[in-house]
Amino acid sequence: MSPKSTQSSATPLAASVKALDWIDQIQWGADGLVPVIAQELGTKDVLMFAWMNKQALQKTAELGRAVYFSRSRQKLWFKGEESGHVQRVHDIRLDCDNDVVLLCVTQEGHDPSIACHTGRHSCFYQSLQGLDGKKEFGWASVEPVLKDPESIYK
Amino acid sequence: MSPKSTQSSATPLAASVKALDWIDQIQWGADGLVPVIAQELGTKDVLMFAWMNKQALQKTAELGRAVYFSRSRQKLWFKGEESGHVQRVHDIRLDCDNDVVLLCVTQEGHDPSIACHTGRHSCFYQSLQGLDGKKEFGWASVEPVLKDPESIYK
Repeated sequence: MSPKSTQSSATPLAASVKALDWIDQIQWGADGLVPVIAQELGTKDVLMFAWMNKQALQKTAELGRAVYFSRSRQKLWFKGEESGHVQRVHDIRLDCDNDVVLLCVTQEGHDPSIACHTGRHSCFYQSLQGLDGKKEFGWASVEPVLKDPESIYK
Repeated sequence: MSPKSTQSSATPLAASVKALDWIDQIQWGADGLVPVIAQELGTKDVLMFAWMNKQALQKTAELGRAVYFSRSRQKLWFKGEESGHVQRVHDIRLDCDNDVVLLCVTQEGHDPSIACHTGRHSCFYQSLQGLDGKKEFGWASVEPVLKDPESIYK
């Protein structure tokens, strides 16, 4: 019996190796992270962009709830832990190079939904003006604040 | 007259400073890059994820066509230069931290549209199976190849 066939028998060790396998297929960056895009189910709006480490992705898959890795705080960030703006996860996609993750989520906690810490629906609320050929470019906020951030983060 | 008010006068130098201003508002990474998400106009599908440096973003805005920075080739990548799968850019969004860009694009060159080098519509064609509570996770390709990559890249 080869080492390989031993590994595929149903020992607890083999089971744990298999469970981690899907995570190890991801091309993790040198910092142990992958970029993650969160897209809203239904509207298909891109809500936000963040990062995950292995543990964050494992938790996300197990809980069906978005768990990111906060680079500024250097720890797991259970999205909504302070704001209540939890993201339920319906689908987890991986790109062709195995190095970017796309989540399909329901953004909970407020109606209309708020994903951004500024109290806006989406983090991508700044739009480049001037693409109409005027060539005078500049950023403009084009989405309203739905809730005062001070009342979100007490 | 303060140096600041001199800068805002309409000299060629001041004009060029102003034109670059919107690019300098972006929080460029230590490697001089920002992550970029491309989303399709109409379907709102997330097509791909790539990177830009300042020059790539400047070209993208000026040409109204997606120009990325290829990290593997370390040079500008005019999306579609080989494949013909050019992306027309309708909107450029910036997130709340000024460090992620979202493009709204029309994916040209094939119908139905192909953004991925594998010949698929979107790069995010691998879906994590097992989120239904079975906890036996694994990636599965869930989108068809629309065109043989060998015939795309001659």
